[in-house]
Amino acid sequence: MSSPLSFTDYMRAFASRVEHQLQSALPRAWDVPAVLSESMQYSLMAGGKRLRPLLVLAAAEAMHAPGDPSAERTIEAALPVACAIEMIHTYSLIHDDLPAMDNDDFRRGKPTNHRIYGEAMAILAGDALLTHAFFSVAQACREGGIPAERVLAIVEDLSYYAGARGMVGGQAADILGEQGITDIGQLEYIHIHKTSDLIVFSLKAGGRIGGASDAQLEALEQFGLHLGLAFQIQDDILDLTGDEQKLGKPLRSDEKLQKVTYPYLIGLDACRAKVEELTGKAKQSLSAAGLPNPERLFQLADYLMRRDY
Amino acid sequence: MSSPLSFTDYMRAFASRVEHQLQSALPRAWDVPAVLSESMQYSLMAGGKRLRPLLVLAAAEAMHAPGDPSAERTIEAALPVACAIEMIHTYSLIHDDLPAMDNDDFRRGKPTNHRIYGEAMAILAGDALLTHAFFSVAQACREGGIPAERVLAIVEDLSYYAGARGMVGGQAADILGEQGITDIGQLEYIHIHKTSDLIVFSLKAGGRIGGASDAQLEALEQFGLHLGLAFQIQDDILDLTGDEQKLGKPLRSDEKLQKVTYPYLIGLDACRAKVEELTGKAKQSLSAAGLPNPERLFQLADYLMRRDY
Repeated sequence: MSSPLSFTDYMRAFASRVEHQLQSALPRAWDVPAVLSESMQYSLMAGGKRLRPLLVLAAAEAMHAPGDPSAERTIEAALPVACAIEMIHTYSLIHDDLPAMDNDDFRRGKPTNHRIYGEAMAILAGDALLTHAFFSVAQACREGGIPAERVLAIVEDLSYYAGARGMVGGQAADILGEQGITDIGQLEYIHIHKTSDLIVFSLKAGGRIGGASDAQLEALEQFGLHLGLAFQIQDDILDLTGDEQKLGKPLRSDEKLQKVTYPYLIGLDACRAKVEELTGKAKQSLSAAGLPNPERLFQLADYLMRRDY
Repeated sequence: MSSPLSFTDYMRAFASRVEHQLQSALPRAWDVPAVLSESMQYSLMAGGKRLRPLLVLAAAEAMHAPGDPSAERTIEAALPVACAIEMIHTYSLIHDDLPAMDNDDFRRGKPTNHRIYGEAMAILAGDALLTHAFFSVAQACREGGIPAERVLAIVEDLSYYAGARGMVGGQAADILGEQGITDIGQLEYIHIHKTSDLIVFSLKAGGRIGGASDAQLEALEQFGLHLGLAFQIQDDILDLTGDEQKLGKPLRSDEKLQKVTYPYLIGLDACRAKVEELTGKAKQSLSAAGLPNPERLFQLADYLMRRDY
């Protein structure tokens, strides 16, 4: 068992590996029109928690018993996939912020992509990041030596969880349902797809790289589904009660956009209880699967429940 | 050798297989918010020449000697990849037509996607088609039995040729250079990426499915590069001299958008000569590679040169 301090160090070390890998993950600038390249880089390197990449790495590591020296090779091979999911997440934010969608001027305290590069370039930067994510996934085979069958399964998962049946579907449902949502079932549908799906993808991808069995992949999926919903409800809570400085955005943005949220539907206290309940369920699903080393994933779940940004 | 009539029949037969396959290529409607599903289907099934899918199939077929009964299995395995490239082409048209880009109201005689479904849904439909293309490619392995290594190479090619270093890069250069283009080198850069890259992808993907060697893939690439430029110049010529009914759009749209085109830079006669020259070069590159059955690809090149729509 690791102490909370060492978990913080663990997070920091992994996040810095992800940042470093992201620096060189995009096509080199001389291959690409300079402004497009800058625009992609601007949003990809704008910081953020890098939660999804961390989940890829932690799930990959979870497939090796503590102390197994080959864990490091698996984590290394997982890095391009960790970058890929961050590209997908970044593209979705660029497109979501567009005037035709949420029309946001700021993201993480910086002007949104289209505010700097214009709408046309922001659309293209999003398209290019989305497309390049698949290139990055393929590098797990070419550079990481992971068998092509496993990497192709990750490609399939990525197009599933990020596409019409996944994240894009969630975003569409969100837009179509704006102001018309009245029950928690509809809201859950949106958040399972807008938020949980990429989290589920990240966990399964890490598991696949580490050679997870079907039962283990299923457990990672259940863990991710619950974790994703808990994460989203916590986000809604922080939008009402958080610290603007830490969040990097003004409070009560959901209210201003007249968004239907969990606190709006069930109240803050019930939300807090639900985050705790879902986190418990997440950990329970994972326990059952007998991963060789799930400790970091449990810690991540607790950390996300207690985060204040 | 086939007669011109039998080539027309060949085209028709392949195009109808592609149409049929496209009908069921998208995620089933009950998995996806209905409006998103409709919006994707609307643009994907709006017709068009289906040129890129035909190139995938013809290149796959070219890898088998005439009369080889296993050609049919290869063509069948290539169908999901043929659909994938049409999804990519379709998404690029939806995004190009957006108000922030070319702001087009009509495409192939029908209202553009955002005119029917709104800008937000058009952006998402494009994103979803792009994402689903990779799912469709993966089906060449899962359903077509093509080895995972080959299919993963197609995934890598698709993200390369459709991404920042390919089609999206060409589109960005086009937007950045608007009205500032003065020489043929800049114009060629744009068209190599906006047009040739997807054509090159299609030919290489078909080749890969049929087991092409590196030298054969290189020849298919050269064939595609020349063919793509010839195709684009022919498009520019038709925009000035074609039949509005056949083209499904008003003539002289490039002039109205103040687009710099080949006829604008070098005149119509030089353009016609260049289309012929490039088609010759394309066929020459292919001849050198010794594909088992390149006849249909030669015929396709001639057909594209002579087309009037």
